[in-house]
Amino acid sequence: MDERVREHAAMLVDWSARVDAGDDVVVSVAEDAHDLGVAVAEALGERGATVTTLYGSDELSRAYLKGAEAGVDSGDSDDSGDSDDSGDADDADDTPIFDDDLAVDRAIFEAADAYLRIGGGRNTTATADVSPETRRAYAKARKGVREARMDTDWVSTVHPTRSLAQQAGMAYEEYRDFVYDAVLRDWEALAAEMSEMKAVLDAGEEVRLVTERDDAPDTDVTMSIAGRTAVNSAASVAYDSHNLPSGEVFTAPYDTAGEAFFDVPMTIDATRVRDVRLVFEGGEVVDFAAEAGEDALADILDTDAGARRLGELGIGMNRGIDRFTDSILFDEKMGDTVHMAVGRAYDACLPEGESGNDSAVHVDMISDVSERSRMEVDGEVVQRDGTFRWEDGFEE
Amino acid sequence: MDERVREHAAMLVDWSARVDAGDDVVVSVAEDAHDLGVAVAEALGERGATVTTLYGSDELSRAYLKGAEAGVDSGDSDDSGDSDDSGDADDADDTPIFDDDLAVDRAIFEAADAYLRIGGGRNTTATADVSPETRRAYAKARKGVREARMDTDWVSTVHPTRSLAQQAGMAYEEYRDFVYDAVLRDWEALAAEMSEMKAVLDAGEEVRLVTERDDAPDTDVTMSIAGRTAVNSAASVAYDSHNLPSGEVFTAPYDTAGEAFFDVPMTIDATRVRDVRLVFEGGEVVDFAAEAGEDALADILDTDAGARRLGELGIGMNRGIDRFTDSILFDEKMGDTVHMAVGRAYDACLPEGESGNDSAVHVDMISDVSERSRMEVDGEVVQRDGTFRWEDGFEE
Repeated sequence: MDERVREHAAMLVDWSARVDAGDDVVVSVAEDAHDLGVAVAEALGERGATVTTLYGSDELSRAYLKGAEAGVDSGDSDDSGDSDDSGDADDADDTPIFDDDLAVDRAIFEAADAYLRIGGGRNTTATADVSPETRRAYAKARKGVREARMDTDWVSTVHPTRSLAQQAGMAYEEYRDFVYDAVLRDWEALAAEMSEMKAVLDAGEEVRLVTERDDAPDTDVTMSIAGRTAVNSAASVAYDSHNLPSGEVFTAPYDTAGEAFFDVPMTIDATRVRDVRLVFEGGEVVDFAAEAGEDALADILDTDAGARRLGELGIGMNRGIDRFTDSILFDEKMGDTVHMAVGRAYDACLPEGESGNDSAVHVDMISDVSERSRMEVDGEVVQRDGTFRWEDGFEE
Repeated sequence: MDERVREHAAMLVDWSARVDAGDDVVVSVAEDAHDLGVAVAEALGERGATVTTLYGSDELSRAYLKGAEAGVDSGDSDDSGDSDDSGDADDADDTPIFDDDLAVDRAIFEAADAYLRIGGGRNTTATADVSPETRRAYAKARKGVREARMDTDWVSTVHPTRSLAQQAGMAYEEYRDFVYDAVLRDWEALAAEMSEMKAVLDAGEEVRLVTERDDAPDTDVTMSIAGRTAVNSAASVAYDSHNLPSGEVFTAPYDTAGEAFFDVPMTIDATRVRDVRLVFEGGEVVDFAAEAGEDALADILDTDAGARRLGELGIGMNRGIDRFTDSILFDEKMGDTVHMAVGRAYDACLPEGESGNDSAVHVDMISDVSERSRMEVDGEVVQRDGTFRWEDGFEE
């Protein structure tokens, strides 16, 4: 085993999840993420934690959902006394109704101290033929489970697989180097740097982001952050940070107005989405367009009322990530980028007891801010062309 | 996907576990058992059940246990202030102490209606270098979890993997045919035949098994079965049967006396065991020997007081299984065989509220009874040379 797999496991268990002896830890292992699962199990045994291992297989999820769709179809044909192929016209009625009393899954996360999700997989489009309606119905049924899971010390990471390398357009060995460069960092040093950004956002009331590139539509968007707390996301639950790698500072904005353009390509629910433009009025998306995947974007925005409002503004600060790989875990953390998410806000950004934007979705969209851009907080420039105020080369 | 994989999944879900809409089903998927996991997930979606998938990886288990051993080692060296390699002399103190408050695992099985264990794996000796002491300590810590699991509608099966084919000494395609011949049977017809054997055992008070082969030590052993109920193990929880394939009738004997010889080779905790001889007095093993694996056998018998008494007498009646494959799931069900297990008895064989032989272990040993053998119940011959009283060719 590559020694970096063991280092990754130790980073996940010790730095990220802060596992102690006696902790009950649930680990989800994706297809082809076996090696990191083994290294994590070994680390948990050594720390004196308990371990329960879930199989996070996209192909199993797809089979379950397709089975549920088939179950509805055959149920319909029973009712009508007709043959199976009569049901094609009423697709809307073919969406399965999922049991939302998920006793086992809820029990798992209610009993767990920590949850370590190891992504990976053998095909990033393994669930491509599941209908958006079925996905949404299942996501809604799992809301309670998701909430219980987010009450644990949860951390999401990936094991570098060939499928993810392909998604990134990289050779396998090259992609492994990329992942470990992003993950195996001096997180304490990065946390110290990110605390500067957090201080600015915590003190600020309004953020304005402007980009004026020749080759892309302009961004000029303002949002309120008054009363909100920024998260110094240093890849550890001790920082309210739940991704490994991380390396961003994010907060929960509101009252967004203006236009924003997101030029970094991404994949949402197995659909390629590119060059998204969102128009905000009174905190809501009132118009949108995309060069590719506009239907998928429309589906997201139509999920519920909260899906048209921002849940997150994030500033990428991990300079160990040097390219886009079509994986949100990495892309949104990259230095010289800013992202905004429509949908659910994170509780850590909100005053105690106050609830932020609520939604079944949370979809991040990313802008490259390395050139001809500026971010202002209360009228003062904090970042210009990717360089922060406290860095060498910053120009007011 | 081979259509037999889907047939296997349907047999498991419908015939064996009797899954209904709304049932909460936990599925454990071994390494390389992915395809059957996918087919089972699809079937569960279609039936309207919920699914939670565990990853039943032997390599993860081994890593966790080796990590726990390493944790003890480093703990010892902390105490002594000495270097790691000083600990080799006190192996006994190096056995990890496992947390027996397994909140997550217990919660899973307390909440589950059914548990489907899909074995498979990539290496049947994947845990070979874990010490017997560590195995035993972990098995003891998991006693509560095991009991909660056995209170569900649980069923154990295997997906045919290359590793299991190798264990059986068979080509992969050949082994797949073997597994599906054993699994995809007319279980109702076999249940009807097995009910004859159950009737004999339920009415009987004493069983005597005699073998007199030239090439092996004799067996002549008697045991009481008065008051015990035989299980017609027809591969369905509706028959108190929890294996797919099954095809045996078993009961919980006591007061065993005499000598028994088990000629079918088997693998216990990654150790090859062959030609076991057990001598019983007053219900207990008082002497034992084995041509191979005698130490592993001694470890088993020393586990606890119940490990020296029989928990099971079983009569194999699945004639779809035509050879030994060094897998207890198949070997003990084969026609022309009888097996006895030291250790834990199954509740289904006992009068309501009465507890049978209790132990942390349950280890089956098998005799070929195809030649020069007879089984008597209360002095009447029920099976001679493998042929039952109700079959053509039976000789009194």
